[in-house]
Amino acid sequence: MKKFYITKSRRLRSTPFSSRIENQGLTAYTVYNHMLLPSAFEDTEKEYFHLKENVQLWDVAGERQVQIVGKDSAKLVQLMTCRNLSKSKIGRCYYAPIIDEQGKMINDPIILKLDENKWWISLADSDVGLYAKGLASGLKLQAEVSEPDVNILAVQGPKSFKLMEKVLGKKINELKFFGFDYFDFKGNKFFIARSGWSKQGGYEIYVENREAGLNLYDELFLAGKEFDVKPGCPNSIERIESGLLSCGNDFDNGDNPYECGFDKYIDIKSDINYLGKKALVEISKEGIIRKLMGVKIDLDKIEIIEERPLQNGKSIVGNLRSAVYSPQFKKVVGIAMIKKEYWDKKTAFELEINGKKSKGLICDLPLV
Amino acid sequence: MKKFYITKSRRLRSTPFSSRIENQGLTAYTVYNHMLLPSAFEDTEKEYFHLKENVQLWDVAGERQVQIVGKDSAKLVQLMTCRNLSKSKIGRCYYAPIIDEQGKMINDPIILKLDENKWWISLADSDVGLYAKGLASGLKLQAEVSEPDVNILAVQGPKSFKLMEKVLGKKINELKFFGFDYFDFKGNKFFIARSGWSKQGGYEIYVENREAGLNLYDELFLAGKEFDVKPGCPNSIERIESGLLSCGNDFDNGDNPYECGFDKYIDIKSDINYLGKKALVEISKEGIIRKLMGVKIDLDKIEIIEERPLQNGKSIVGNLRSAVYSPQFKKVVGIAMIKKEYWDKKTAFELEINGKKSKGLICDLPLV
Repeated sequence: MKKFYITKSRRLRSTPFSSRIENQGLTAYTVYNHMLLPSAFEDTEKEYFHLKENVQLWDVAGERQVQIVGKDSAKLVQLMTCRNLSKSKIGRCYYAPIIDEQGKMINDPIILKLDENKWWISLADSDVGLYAKGLASGLKLQAEVSEPDVNILAVQGPKSFKLMEKVLGKKINELKFFGFDYFDFKGNKFFIARSGWSKQGGYEIYVENREAGLNLYDELFLAGKEFDVKPGCPNSIERIESGLLSCGNDFDNGDNPYECGFDKYIDIKSDINYLGKKALVEISKEGIIRKLMGVKIDLDKIEIIEERPLQNGKSIVGNLRSAVYSPQFKKVVGIAMIKKEYWDKKTAFELEINGKKSKGLICDLPLV
Repeated sequence: MKKFYITKSRRLRSTPFSSRIENQGLTAYTVYNHMLLPSAFEDTEKEYFHLKENVQLWDVAGERQVQIVGKDSAKLVQLMTCRNLSKSKIGRCYYAPIIDEQGKMINDPIILKLDENKWWISLADSDVGLYAKGLASGLKLQAEVSEPDVNILAVQGPKSFKLMEKVLGKKINELKFFGFDYFDFKGNKFFIARSGWSKQGGYEIYVENREAGLNLYDELFLAGKEFDVKPGCPNSIERIESGLLSCGNDFDNGDNPYECGFDKYIDIKSDINYLGKKALVEISKEGIIRKLMGVKIDLDKIEIIEERPLQNGKSIVGNLRSAVYSPQFKKVVGIAMIKKEYWDKKTAFELEINGKKSKGLICDLPLV
């Protein structure tokens, strides 16, 4: 496929790390929450193998934070998500679908409880801050909504644990998965969570002081030499194999959280109050008629930029939304919205691209 | 400056016209409302002269519509803007700042009144639909908020009038500036407004039927041969010279509409009800201490990807937010947020880029 450049402007905000990473072999960007998000270096497959064996630093500042502060902050956060946060704890991260009054997906962020009256919503790509502002104004809530200058640096891969221990000390090992705490580096406090958009393990450093963040960035590369640290970015092969969904790619505002397989993050039984609860109760009663599943396709390359129908004879089995060649399976793997009558995992289908038909099979998520 | 590719994915939505325009010499994209927006062909300067003399077709589907329908739709639309829409008419477009409760800018769309209970908000780059959903839910308004599959094709330039008359008939000449109506082309109705993001005159065709839209697209190129029609995109030279502000570039959620020069679109005197009115009354009393103005700088090229300080000795005069080389002025022209003490148009300043200082002068907007 033809390649196109990205036209930079102030509107597509640079990050504190942009100038660093551009000099470290970056070749392509995507845009995420009105910000540049590195999306390719030299070779996605090479980076995939490196990520699974070593450690990478990712500039994921595009994962912007919606900060909600005030005595009604917990109420406002709960209003936007179907996940029950009534027993949430300070210092913990919660993966939580944000939905609208129709019960349709708006975002799938990580919600961080910093204090009883202070929350961060660490976003996928949509302006959830505007949703929060509308609700806060409409309901006259005492909740201040803002986007603080927080820029996430992710340290991902199996050697991230050793690297972070070397740079930040042994205390980092006490951090549990989806826990967060403050850690000191050269007199500056860094908010660090054990999280990240890969299944290879790692951390996300929420940089609040740009200058200190750049010093830490440089130190991680220096100290990381022995672990073969490299600059990286969310890897499409790794994330699809791992079944990590991408908001805007795998689902959008036309889909509900049941269809996305978010059942364990949906609470329709307790008395918590959130928008779309009535809609989800109805959907739950009726049952869904499609859901996101994995697929494997007999192809050695693919580029998906819009939904593609998967067919079984003249019937549509579902729609392919993300796909990439997997060196592990030696075929294309993908994420597709599949109709109920085809949920049987052995269902075969055909995908037609440029007049050429390929065969595929439906499977569970995650693929690995 | 180094160039980077854009990584396409379903999340950066293609438009109905993407495949057409990619085969017509497109070289670069930006992203606008989660959609690909063409941003460069061969030479911006050549396209600037062509736009000012001839006619261009622009794929501006990224200007998404927020559709608001229902008995409380007018109330909801008014709640989001400081422009008085109480006397607005069906069939008219209204340029209107969208602000938050703090009186800060969220967007500067064109609001179209299709019916007493049906509105479109034709967006700059932010998810105003989520703001509307939050408000509608919070206030329990009878207003349905959605993003219809409407994709705008702009016909811009002085010869757009002749081209549109040739393709759509003489009736199109009756359309006044910022008026809209339905027009027939080969049995399909097209919603067309006399508007567009240039000062060279023209139309925006709100394509509601993709197939019919592609037929019209092809016909406009065919019939436009005699007018030297070319594919184009919003032109940075033309728009800065004309003082057409760009949301996210020239202003953002840190600025209020007075600072953007939107005074004539602000009503704090009548009894209309909108969010941020109290804040604007306060700002109006105190007076603003900075505003957007034009600048001319003695340089023959520039690339602005973040705010740049303009200095007068050791004092900061303001911040440059957009700039481009203007062949008309034979220097760089730009838009900057200027401190009150320097509003005197003759104020000289210095801009330092890569250690090199250039001289400049503040001027009014528009520059031409």
